[in-house]
Amino acid sequence: MNELGLIEKIKKLSGRGPQIHVGIGDDCAIHRLKSGPDQLFKIDPMIEGVHFLRSQPAAIVGQRALARNLSDIAAMGGTPDFCLVSLAIPANLGEKWITDFYRGLLSVARVTGTALAGGHLAQAGQIYCDVFVGGHVRRGKALLRSGAKPGDALYVSGKLGKSWTGRIRPRLALGQSLLGRATSCMDLSDGISLDLHRLCLASKVAAELERVPMVRGATLERALHGGEDYELLFTMPPRMTPPKDVTRVGSIVKGKPGAVCFRGEPLAAKGHDHFRAFHNASAES
Amino acid sequence: MNELGLIEKIKKLSGRGPQIHVGIGDDCAIHRLKSGPDQLFKIDPMIEGVHFLRSQPAAIVGQRALARNLSDIAAMGGTPDFCLVSLAIPANLGEKWITDFYRGLLSVARVTGTALAGGHLAQAGQIYCDVFVGGHVRRGKALLRSGAKPGDALYVSGKLGKSWTGRIRPRLALGQSLLGRATSCMDLSDGISLDLHRLCLASKVAAELERVPMVRGATLERALHGGEDYELLFTMPPRMTPPKDVTRVGSIVKGKPGAVCFRGEPLAAKGHDHFRAFHNASAES
Repeated sequence: MNELGLIEKIKKLSGRGPQIHVGIGDDCAIHRLKSGPDQLFKIDPMIEGVHFLRSQPAAIVGQRALARNLSDIAAMGGTPDFCLVSLAIPANLGEKWITDFYRGLLSVARVTGTALAGGHLAQAGQIYCDVFVGGHVRRGKALLRSGAKPGDALYVSGKLGKSWTGRIRPRLALGQSLLGRATSCMDLSDGISLDLHRLCLASKVAAELERVPMVRGATLERALHGGEDYELLFTMPPRMTPPKDVTRVGSIVKGKPGAVCFRGEPLAAKGHDHFRAFHNASAES
Repeated sequence: MNELGLIEKIKKLSGRGPQIHVGIGDDCAIHRLKSGPDQLFKIDPMIEGVHFLRSQPAAIVGQRALARNLSDIAAMGGTPDFCLVSLAIPANLGEKWITDFYRGLLSVARVTGTALAGGHLAQAGQIYCDVFVGGHVRRGKALLRSGAKPGDALYVSGKLGKSWTGRIRPRLALGQSLLGRATSCMDLSDGISLDLHRLCLASKVAAELERVPMVRGATLERALHGGEDYELLFTMPPRMTPPKDVTRVGSIVKGKPGAVCFRGEPLAAKGHDHFRAFHNASAES
């Protein structure tokens, strides 16, 4: 059984609970209270040897650990409120690594208005960090992956093909500006070839990708299949004026759900797929 | 610098944010919305070799991973709503371990009304799991560690000295029944010698411990200093009738903040202290 199969099995075991209203495989879990905004939640790990190397500056690891989660809040048009951080490091790594990690994380927290609400320090054989982020979005208005319609224009923010050493700038203002305008949205965390495939699957549509805006020095291979972009991928009705500083990269079309063509040829979904987030679909209360 | 020093440093680095209203070192972070109940949040790791061994049944690991966090919700008088689970395991561990883990976790989720809202599966060199739990409590009514007064009676639920192989039963109903009655409350996760010291520090009082109810087969050493009880430790005004099935174990007295005596002799805070949760104190909005 592959990971997707396992996750389906876990979902089946878990049944349905009240108050949790979540798009299957969407960027965040949504918790709906009796009134007020919908609450958004996301947890995502940063594991040494998988998401970063020990030789990388701790401040960059800390920045990315929070920013990756904020990118998921952005993808739903949300506003972040707070985070909790569980960090485990080898005993020999020392205090400087931890304080540098937190300096990096807190630099992202400050510019995005995310309060550090708490956390945990522990020891482990390798560096392991889970960041949990809570946010909110106008009730019933979260941007989902599932609303793209044939004919919609397809856009990405920024440029693709980034390497994993850079600073992630979560597209919170852009995501919020898309509320009520974009028909679907997700963040690019596993490469556009795989992520666009997922968006199309969720929306039961196909897509024609015509171009990808690339960072200087990136190869087309990395721009299509790399997993370190943390930009937004979204769709809008074709006649609606898009926000500034985004690039139209193609169109949504009728076709086999999930099928993606690049310049007329089928595009394999080759992005990262080792690590999966899952969300349990259940009824809203 | 020790871990407590590090955590103080992190708190200083992080400054204050709106909306997060948290008792320093208390069991959960509290997120206050514009109206409605206070939201409770907790993240806590389960690390192979630290909190359990690989030889332990995966279902027990899963049960404990969730129940430990629910015990913190119980300690604040809260009601759990949902959890997110980030699980990383070695590649060779296989599907059965994961499904057994989730069966155990979900058995606790079901009986406590906690929805599995999502999570993440990844690979790591050792088993590592972070469970995040969200819950709620009547606005402004959460039980804190900081309200014990000289003269208060001191109680514990259940019996102490449990080993780490058992099933944890988070004391949710008891915690909820203490709302508006207990002057302070916390859960016993690091041994009563250390946890009572912490409660007294937070309340700026001292305590006289007279007895500890012990499980069959436990030594006094383990009942005083063991870290696997997950019972509630709480204080009430002396003339208030306590709930059923709790044991009065002593009294709160004036004295050096944090000082604990057991049968008249100073009691060293020898419980577990390798792993610490911290919460960032900041203003409520």
